[in-house]
Amino acid sequence: MSDMNFASDNGGPVPQAVLDAMARANEGYAMAYGSDPLSGAVADRIRTLFEAPDAAVYLVATGTAANSLALATLGQPWQTVFCSRLAHIHEDECNAPEFYSGGAKLTLVGDGDRMTPEALRAAIAGEETRGVHGPQRGPVSITNVTERGNVYSLDEMRALIAVAQEYDLPVHLDGARFANACVALGATPAEMSWKIGVDVAVFGGTKNGLMGVEAVVIFDPARHGAGTADWEFELRRKRAAHLFSKHRYLAAQMDAYLTDDLWRDLATRANASGARLRAGLEAQGVTIENDTTANMLFVSMPRGVHKAVQAKGAIYHCWGDLENGPDDEAVTGRLVCDWSMREDAIDRFVTTVAEAMAEA
Amino acid sequence: MSDMNFASDNGGPVPQAVLDAMARANEGYAMAYGSDPLSGAVADRIRTLFEAPDAAVYLVATGTAANSLALATLGQPWQTVFCSRLAHIHEDECNAPEFYSGGAKLTLVGDGDRMTPEALRAAIAGEETRGVHGPQRGPVSITNVTERGNVYSLDEMRALIAVAQEYDLPVHLDGARFANACVALGATPAEMSWKIGVDVAVFGGTKNGLMGVEAVVIFDPARHGAGTADWEFELRRKRAAHLFSKHRYLAAQMDAYLTDDLWRDLATRANASGARLRAGLEAQGVTIENDTTANMLFVSMPRGVHKAVQAKGAIYHCWGDLENGPDDEAVTGRLVCDWSMREDAIDRFVTTVAEAMAEA
Amino acid sequence: MSDMNFASDNGGPVPQAVLDAMARANEGYAMAYGSDPLSGAVADRIRTLFEAPDAAVYLVATGTAANSLALATLGQPWQTVFCSRLAHIHEDECNAPEFYSGGAKLTLVGDGDRMTPEALRAAIAGEETRGVHGPQRGPVSITNVTERGNVYSLDEMRALIAVAQEYDLPVHLDGARFANACVALGATPAEMSWKIGVDVAVFGGTKNGLMGVEAVVIFDPARHGAGTADWEFELRRKRAAHLFSKHRYLAAQMDAYLTDDLWRDLATRANASGARLRAGLEAQGVTIENDTTANMLFVSMPRGVHKAVQAKGAIYHCWGDLENGPDDEAVTGRLVCDWSMREDAIDRFVTTVAEAMAEA
Amino acid sequence: MSDMNFASDNGGPVPQAVLDAMARANEGYAMAYGSDPLSGAVADRIRTLFEAPDAAVYLVATGTAANSLALATLGQPWQTVFCSRLAHIHEDECNAPEFYSGGAKLTLVGDGDRMTPEALRAAIAGEETRGVHGPQRGPVSITNVTERGNVYSLDEMRALIAVAQEYDLPVHLDGARFANACVALGATPAEMSWKIGVDVAVFGGTKNGLMGVEAVVIFDPARHGAGTADWEFELRRKRAAHLFSKHRYLAAQMDAYLTDDLWRDLATRANASGARLRAGLEAQGVTIENDTTANMLFVSMPRGVHKAVQAKGAIYHCWGDLENGPDDEAVTGRLVCDWSMREDAIDRFVTTVAEAMAEA
Repeated sequence: MSDMNFASDNGGPVPQAVLDAMARANEGYAMAYGSDPLSGAVADRIRTLFEAPDAAVYLVATGTAANSLALATLGQPWQTVFCSRLAHIHEDECNAPEFYSGGAKLTLVGDGDRMTPEALRAAIAGEETRGVHGPQRGPVSITNVTERGNVYSLDEMRALIAVAQEYDLPVHLDGARFANACVALGATPAEMSWKIGVDVAVFGGTKNGLMGVEAVVIFDPARHGAGTADWEFELRRKRAAHLFSKHRYLAAQMDAYLTDDLWRDLATRANASGARLRAGLEAQGVTIENDTTANMLFVSMPRGVHKAVQAKGAIYHCWGDLENGPDDEAVTGRLVCDWSMREDAIDRFVTTVAEAMAEA
Repeated sequence: MSDMNFASDNGGPVPQAVLDAMARANEGYAMAYGSDPLSGAVADRIRTLFEAPDAAVYLVATGTAANSLALATLGQPWQTVFCSRLAHIHEDECNAPEFYSGGAKLTLVGDGDRMTPEALRAAIAGEETRGVHGPQRGPVSITNVTERGNVYSLDEMRALIAVAQEYDLPVHLDGARFANACVALGATPAEMSWKIGVDVAVFGGTKNGLMGVEAVVIFDPARHGAGTADWEFELRRKRAAHLFSKHRYLAAQMDAYLTDDLWRDLATRANASGARLRAGLEAQGVTIENDTTANMLFVSMPRGVHKAVQAKGAIYHCWGDLENGPDDEAVTGRLVCDWSMREDAIDRFVTTVAEAMAEA
Repeated sequence: MSDMNFASDNGGPVPQAVLDAMARANEGYAMAYGSDPLSGAVADRIRTLFEAPDAAVYLVATGTAANSLALATLGQPWQTVFCSRLAHIHEDECNAPEFYSGGAKLTLVGDGDRMTPEALRAAIAGEETRGVHGPQRGPVSITNVTERGNVYSLDEMRALIAVAQEYDLPVHLDGARFANACVALGATPAEMSWKIGVDVAVFGGTKNGLMGVEAVVIFDPARHGAGTADWEFELRRKRAAHLFSKHRYLAAQMDAYLTDDLWRDLATRANASGARLRAGLEAQGVTIENDTTANMLFVSMPRGVHKAVQAKGAIYHCWGDLENGPDDEAVTGRLVCDWSMREDAIDRFVTTVAEAMAEA
Repeated sequence: MSDMNFASDNGGPVPQAVLDAMARANEGYAMAYGSDPLSGAVADRIRTLFEAPDAAVYLVATGTAANSLALATLGQPWQTVFCSRLAHIHEDECNAPEFYSGGAKLTLVGDGDRMTPEALRAAIAGEETRGVHGPQRGPVSITNVTERGNVYSLDEMRALIAVAQEYDLPVHLDGARFANACVALGATPAEMSWKIGVDVAVFGGTKNGLMGVEAVVIFDPARHGAGTADWEFELRRKRAAHLFSKHRYLAAQMDAYLTDDLWRDLATRANASGARLRAGLEAQGVTIENDTTANMLFVSMPRGVHKAVQAKGAIYHCWGDLENGPDDEAVTGRLVCDWSMREDAIDRFVTTVAEAMAEA
């Protein structure tokens, strides 16, 4: 497959260190369902990384599971979750949050990928004005890096969370690209989460080099859930078929991810690729739609240019129809750099774009 | 960890061939969510193995997901699923079938791990006698190898399925130990499934040497589901957060499993270990509760013997309280042999039991 | 329709006093959704009747709604509800408890309509032995009068509730025939409920002369639910479409029911009819299957006798096939007396049975 | 309670004819659960009224139940329902559609109470663009009279339905004020429903003079549902606890409603009251926000005026805070006329408004 592949950060390989850790874990017998020593140690390492010794930590294999289990634990079926209009939990999970929660609603805040405190306050204020008749206010879900490649600053996140706290609503962080955001912000995991008021964070691994592992971190399990959130989460995870019997292979991946800050290294690479790509394209006069960058760019280019560069092997998604419409009409394309993206592939892509623009 | 480990067939390592296949798959970019070539090829290989060119085939990572998605696709929320009293879907999935189905009921057939045609007919006849008021009849779920280590013969399965077909009910096969049953019966996958009337089979890999992969095989997708069962299954899988983005790593495991009949070799080893263990214990006068054997034995031994052998390092689950009660009271223990069980560990275990019995 | 109608206690008319109360309530405007003064007053009257000034009280229109909402509020989706094998919530609600609870399971206790403390303890002890893997223990649901016409004594109820309390499980009382049980036992509503440890009682009206009203009484709302059980119940009721806008017509029915102990009078009549019917039939040598009686009898009579009396106009349900089978085979019939049953109809029925038996 | 009561059309009494019909139905025994002759006859009368001899017809007691059951039968849990931003199913049913459907989503079309074909097409086109990842397109739900008192013309409804049919999506009509719309449009029930392409209509009675009865009319049961929509609907209704045992009292209300076109008379009165109120207020210079009128007005008046007229006994809801804010700021009030509204009460209200405006 072409190495000018910007389709997603779930298309690349995993680092050798992850494979090695899985091979090392593949030794003799281990207790199942997370009772093996490695699983316990990995949970501790995550608590240490997050400076959160009392946090409950769980591994699941997909981001959709992580988000849906977290939101179901934080909320109730008769509530509504506040999220941006472009949130993954709304657009890309085939109603999984609704399924897991038993029928909660999602209230879409604002029009883009980033919520503003004003829009969030207006949305929250607009719900629960009808007593028992309307949906009740539920968790606020924030995604950083957003679905459109933007990075909320810590101050922006704080401002959103302050609104949630005004209404005593719990805060969920969709951290599919948690590491990319940390790197972009120069923040620690604690600074990206509980230190600014996040109640439950997803520490994503799958989009950042793991085969399929996400950690759900519940900072104060006694505050949420029926009884306590940790046991509720465990029951929800099992009932949703997301408790893995051979849990050591999830733990091994996460162990490698935590070792020598691999998670940060991988995100640093991906973000550097994103920056290189941005710089290269901007030098060619391409319009970049997101103003801040981690590892994902939204570019506006003429349809004909998209078609030309894809004909030369570049792989990425466009928003809208590439086949039909005038060649000079602007179409948005999404370019994602995973950790394994090569500089020469980026440079070839930029050159290919430049050539296509010149010919257009 | 002790190698006298009979706790479960999910406690052992995976064969090197599986790790190797995953490493081979870890090359460059691949399309996500099962659109990569390996995932397509593996589905074809499963269709070939099952002699079912029109089957819909899906990979998921846990047996609970496989069973719950299959049953939800075959049934309706207002129906009841017929299964044995000891079925995994009833006892060990924390209400996952109820969750996935939107609230279907389970009707427990008979008293043990094996249903009889008479008990199944009585159970089915007993439901749907109250029109709209009671639960409606739904899928029949059969497990082979059963939860108590027994193997239904093909004739026994045929007889159960004939009852389901009398009432036009679809048949689900929980195949967590599908391979062990095939080996025990000398049957092909097709003979274990559609040739005797199974509508949806789970071809389990996790308990037989994979990290976490099960294939759900829907033999006639046009017969079931809203619209057709294949697209419904895909939507249900995604909505349940069980569609893996980096699907190639599931596919690679399954690919190795299918290559050179690895699945059959692994099960042959596990079953041979079960037979060796059975022979060794019977020679010592231990009562084996299951009359047919694949890779799992239920043994009745005095509490004191269990305590003595566990004190010497043997690891396995007992049904009931080991700590409290007279030493000479019979207690049931479950001994499971996975593919990696060593002959010398079995022999040491038998010797340990013999010594404990002599001292008792 | 024949007045020898023993089909159910939902087949008869409502007392004139109920119609009158509804007509009186039909005056001018009233605030909707239970905010009218009559609705408030009726809730207070129920609190007074139950000697439970802090209880939360809600009206719904069907018994299935009352039971399902109560159980969903008391339990969790990953739990199992303990009830008798013949409980209405299991047999006659088309999976409503599973639907309302989001997929909880029902564990059937014993074999008949009455649980024993031993069977209940065994059932509870048998669940939640598998940690996160199995269903968790949930509410205990008791029905008095039972589905087979028997009446638990207060001591029997106390003994069952003591078992629930051993395990700290909440207790639900399905009171579809609450009034009939009170009359049969000479007990007050408080004695039938919180004084013996019931947490949530259904005070049924529909089977005892109302058009369709049941009161759900939550004795200690702060003990159950997410937050508190009262608000949770209100949200669940609304979400389930059981909050009536013109609530005054439910309240009016219940108001009439409470006035001058109408509820007790109606049940006294129904029970007296049951006793008269029992005495009459026993005098003819008919076997009555239930040993205690409120207003419902299960009689064992030859198929031919059932056919003969039904041919003469008697209406009631039989358990099993009346059409096929030998005339002299015993078949169980269910005879229910509602409040409006006339003595002469009972006597005619007994005579009809006697004649049919003589001719058989 | 004041007779200047415009709070809702669920606050008034029921016509004497309805009470009389219920009293007439209260005679002797009747088979339960809709098997009585009156229930059958009423279903036939509705089929006749709708000129739809093959329709399946069901009575339920609340509009929320009618809508939620209809939508759940027409759609799937992984779909999204298209409705206006102000639809009752979105704003006022505490997530009941999500609950009944097992977690379907609602996609809000446009910004107001009326969808346009363009906005509907854009909304539909915007969903199901992500294959298995996003919600799938589901039913289109139209409300006439809308939540803001407007009446879609038949042509406007046809244009919306044409868009649904382009995408082969079923159409649900929330007919809480079906009769008011028919009267406003001079249309027959058939013209308001299947003749313009509606698949399932709710023929509401509760807001138009009944105690609590809505008819759900499924025009072509073979087209929808698992199996056929009629049996699925019956099972869903029972499972949701909305199958009434003493069904005759629902049927009696509906029978009275159908007799001598009572439903049309009541709506004619309510609409005439709406028109009188509109004319009176407009003569005083009050701004009416809805451009077409059935029985509900949205008026924009200064806060001080609202406060003054409510202080004089008028009862109605305002959108926004009456207590806080400047007296001269415009606030929207909702004025609903039910069938029982008296002309002199309307006139007194108009005078009261005029006086308050003069004093302001």
